[in-house]
Amino acid sequence: MSLFFLSIHGKCVSLRKCLVTFYYLSSVLYDFTAEPGNNELTVKEGETLTITNQHIGGGWIEAQNSRGEIGLVPEDYIEVIPNPNVGNVASPDLSFFDAYAPASASNGNDPWSVWNADPSGGSNNNWASNPEGTQTGKTAPDPWSSVSQGHPQAYQGPVCIHLTSGAEDDEWDDEWDDMKSTGGYAESESGDGGGIQRGGAHATSMKISLNNRFPGFSKSGPELYLLCKQLTKGKDKLPIYVGEVGPVWFYPETQLDCVVADPKKGSKMYGLKSYIEYQITPSTTNRPVNHRYKHFDWLYERLLDKFGSAIPIPSLPDKQVTGRFEEEFIKMRMERLQGWMSRMCRHPVVSSSEVFQLFLTYKDEKEWKMGKRKAEKDETVGVMIFSTIEPEAPDIDLIEVDQKCEQFSRFTKAMDDGVKEILTVGHEHWKRCTGPLPKEYQRIGKAFQNLSSVFNSSGYQGESTLTDAMTAAGKTYEEIAQMFAEQPKKDLHFLMETNNEYKGLLGCFPDTIGVHKAAIDKVKEGDKLVATSKITPHEKVTMAKRVSVMSYALQAEMNHFHSNRIYDYNRVMQLYLEEQVKFYETIAAKLRQAHGQFTTM
Amino acid sequence: MSLFFLSIHGKCVSLRKCLVTFYYLSSVLYDFTAEPGNNELTVKEGETLTITNQHIGGGWIEAQNSRGEIGLVPEDYIEVIPNPNVGNVASPDLSFFDAYAPASASNGNDPWSVWNADPSGGSNNNWASNPEGTQTGKTAPDPWSSVSQGHPQAYQGPVCIHLTSGAEDDEWDDEWDDMKSTGGYAESESGDGGGIQRGGAHATSMKISLNNRFPGFSKSGPELYLLCKQLTKGKDKLPIYVGEVGPVWFYPETQLDCVVADPKKGSKMYGLKSYIEYQITPSTTNRPVNHRYKHFDWLYERLLDKFGSAIPIPSLPDKQVTGRFEEEFIKMRMERLQGWMSRMCRHPVVSSSEVFQLFLTYKDEKEWKMGKRKAEKDETVGVMIFSTIEPEAPDIDLIEVDQKCEQFSRFTKAMDDGVKEILTVGHEHWKRCTGPLPKEYQRIGKAFQNLSSVFNSSGYQGESTLTDAMTAAGKTYEEIAQMFAEQPKKDLHFLMETNNEYKGLLGCFPDTIGVHKAAIDKVKEGDKLVATSKITPHEKVTMAKRVSVMSYALQAEMNHFHSNRIYDYNRVMQLYLEEQVKFYETIAAKLRQAHGQFTTM
Repeated sequence: MSLFFLSIHGKCVSLRKCLVTFYYLSSVLYDFTAEPGNNELTVKEGETLTITNQHIGGGWIEAQNSRGEIGLVPEDYIEVIPNPNVGNVASPDLSFFDAYAPASASNGNDPWSVWNADPSGGSNNNWASNPEGTQTGKTAPDPWSSVSQGHPQAYQGPVCIHLTSGAEDDEWDDEWDDMKSTGGYAESESGDGGGIQRGGAHATSMKISLNNRFPGFSKSGPELYLLCKQLTKGKDKLPIYVGEVGPVWFYPETQLDCVVADPKKGSKMYGLKSYIEYQITPSTTNRPVNHRYKHFDWLYERLLDKFGSAIPIPSLPDKQVTGRFEEEFIKMRMERLQGWMSRMCRHPVVSSSEVFQLFLTYKDEKEWKMGKRKAEKDETVGVMIFSTIEPEAPDIDLIEVDQKCEQFSRFTKAMDDGVKEILTVGHEHWKRCTGPLPKEYQRIGKAFQNLSSVFNSSGYQGESTLTDAMTAAGKTYEEIAQMFAEQPKKDLHFLMETNNEYKGLLGCFPDTIGVHKAAIDKVKEGDKLVATSKITPHEKVTMAKRVSVMSYALQAEMNHFHSNRIYDYNRVMQLYLEEQVKFYETIAAKLRQAHGQFTTM
Repeated sequence: MSLFFLSIHGKCVSLRKCLVTFYYLSSVLYDFTAEPGNNELTVKEGETLTITNQHIGGGWIEAQNSRGEIGLVPEDYIEVIPNPNVGNVASPDLSFFDAYAPASASNGNDPWSVWNADPSGGSNNNWASNPEGTQTGKTAPDPWSSVSQGHPQAYQGPVCIHLTSGAEDDEWDDEWDDMKSTGGYAESESGDGGGIQRGGAHATSMKISLNNRFPGFSKSGPELYLLCKQLTKGKDKLPIYVGEVGPVWFYPETQLDCVVADPKKGSKMYGLKSYIEYQITPSTTNRPVNHRYKHFDWLYERLLDKFGSAIPIPSLPDKQVTGRFEEEFIKMRMERLQGWMSRMCRHPVVSSSEVFQLFLTYKDEKEWKMGKRKAEKDETVGVMIFSTIEPEAPDIDLIEVDQKCEQFSRFTKAMDDGVKEILTVGHEHWKRCTGPLPKEYQRIGKAFQNLSSVFNSSGYQGESTLTDAMTAAGKTYEEIAQMFAEQPKKDLHFLMETNNEYKGLLGCFPDTIGVHKAAIDKVKEGDKLVATSKITPHEKVTMAKRVSVMSYALQAEMNHFHSNRIYDYNRVMQLYLEEQVKFYETIAAKLRQAHGQFTTM
């Protein structure tokens, strides 16, 4: 076990040490040299530190090295060695998993270290909760592939830390207790981390999520829905219609949208803890509400919890702390929160859900807390979401259900590869455009100008026209150098962001499709189960009907995905090419002007 | 001595070995892998070979390696270890130098190895006869600097071999004897190599050239002109007028020009020896004449011999053999011979000279041979050229002469640096445009097309507009990749060629200016020389007058250089920018078209 544990963390830490101090131990990801007089601590990559104070804020933590020296280190330069239980999520031995859970849950010096511990840190299967390799950095494997590709410049520094920053973790202790008091919090969940299930879910959905993760070991799973006796009553039904393109969700008349803007830095506890508050203005009410990242994160958990089995819920922009690049980072995070919110708004099922509306129409703390509790108590989560879906169409037989599921699986996998290729190529192009190319054009510019000034020194008459022209040409190439360096922010940036977003979205499909596959397998076993009288013939019929309902849901979701994809890629390609055209036209114009200054007598 | 000799060659060859077999030993510059069945010999860089037959032709020689294996090797992959005397040119001990000369001259198994042995191989002073570092490759130092920079693609392979190829060395043996019989050939000249004096010069000019090379050790030198009793009579006077820009040569009404074209491969001795013949058509007669490279080379020697002290005579394109790139090479050499001829035609003094006219108006072999002999017997060579110059202006005093000379020296040095910077930067730009950039745009193109074909497989309706557009966009970036790869040939090529040509031209100034500086120093010594009655007071006056004449010549030449430079750089910059504008405009147009295919519904 210990060996296994070590291997999945790939860190040189003895299990024992971890068990004793795993909340405090951290491993240095990158060299960091202290600036004198700032109480900073110089650390080397691979070094193991003991965190002495993680509530410094501003992207800094206080840590002690093996020589006993204490000082500040940028949080994003270190990686806290995650809760061992997290590692064990991947372990087939669930009893072991449970056995350790209490320790972690009770020993909650920092509950966030449980919550935010990267759930995929130890699991190399395709079920990582956060598919965005770049966003959880080193230890988070992509589903399907290891191409870890993110926005080339969004991240000024490494982006991997499994502790939330000081800006995030204040005041949750009490809410944590809240959630415990709801009784809905299952200990084993601490191991489930930020996956399909995180924070405040109750036992039922918890089991499902476990099943989503480990179909192999589940005792329950889709059966929970396939076989459940009575379905939830009338309210909150999700109809599916058959449109031109096939099964589709019910789309409201006017599409909801919202604007995320105006990030404000706040602080509490005499400035000891700081946070950023974003203003969200829904197109419906047009009334701005303020939320902090952790509220977005809470919303994400609820949506994942409730819809995750039927609808891919993309992860939020990562929890990276700002380190020294706060401005850059806040801007980028806001942009991505906007992207995430817009996508949620565009989804007819998600956007009309009670919890999403609660988030968008925050009135006062009291109502908010009530709404939160209600959402966290919601029983219709996990696979039970299918119990609310009502396709207005005849049942589909299992073969077709199976085929559809296979087709979607193939497509999403293929698209994931394609998207990653674009990200890889784009990343290299970004580096070239901001690195060697401008340098080169600058040197060309300088060379022309230098020769021009040599000519100026000739003492020969009638030189000025040539020297002025050559100086101008030189300056033009320096301008072009500048243009090259700035261009990616104008076009490639959006191409990368969109593909990055789709990478995240596609990363959710293995989870969603997995639920369907598990259900299909169950139904295939139907006869056997009847024969061994595990189920009644009537239950077998019910299962077949319900897997057909699940298939309608999946088809509706895929059609939603496709129409959005077509729109998004048309838009982003247009934008990209538009800017590219402007770019090359501007260069041509500048050069034409420079050309005009030369004269052959 | 042996140590010195070794150091200047930087080759691991014992002096003894060299002295015994230096005409046959060669050292491998680059790895070469034999193609099976071609009698080729695989060799490794640094390996020492014995040449068994250098008359194979077509850029190949037959050589034997240390294991006794014999086979063909591309001549430009090896470097024949030069005549040790060449190395000793740089040695201050001229007596030693003379002592070895006979050996080399008489031991003339291959006179070319004496003629073409790179004279600067061992001398790191500023007097290298061939300033074009790129053109004599590894062992030829640039004057002033070691930036060895040439045309990025003109040279498909290394270009350093100090043996002429089979295509060049036929039939010279008899002419060699000719020249000996003229009695004009001085032994010590073998050491003088391809410098200011080569082949068939007579003792006088030889001494001068020696002096040009080693002012420090000369007993004669510019004094030869400064003090000579009677100047050459009337004919062939070179007037200098004072124009707007100062002293200028006499420029003819119509400027001579010529076209070098139509290279034809010929062979003799039953095809054992092959050569290329170029057709030169002067604008005056419009009657084409044919010449082979070696005739150009002979002309170069004569011009250098006659005008070198007053007028920088740029080297010919190098003697590189073609190796495997014959087509490319012939094209490039023709282009450069054209450039060289045009520059000579543009020079009023050179173009009107008898020897240059002889070359342009070749009628038959008999007349040609006569003309050759006459030219080789010409007495008015080296510094004696100044005896034919007649400035129509008052004498300039020594201070002004000195100042002018200093100024020209500073300018040419500064321009040489500027030109080399452009060559260096241009070379890197060339590599990037033909290497990584096209690859990158190709990958971008492929990535778009791949994603497009994934989309095609979605099975979703109304996908085609997007997929077609994305495929088109992908193809467009592949076209752009192609454009990038081909662009340098369209613009950068000429920028590089012009600067390369100027680098060669500027490389001649140290020689030319050196003659002037030596003369100035002599005149400065005037009083002392009179006091020690080395010269008469009258001779001192004569020297002052004559150094003034030399200064007029230098000024006329500089003004010629400046006006040509201004024209050439205006022209080449115009051409470069024109092509650059076209390039970027075409890209923009292609992208605009691709952009048009996307639609946001």
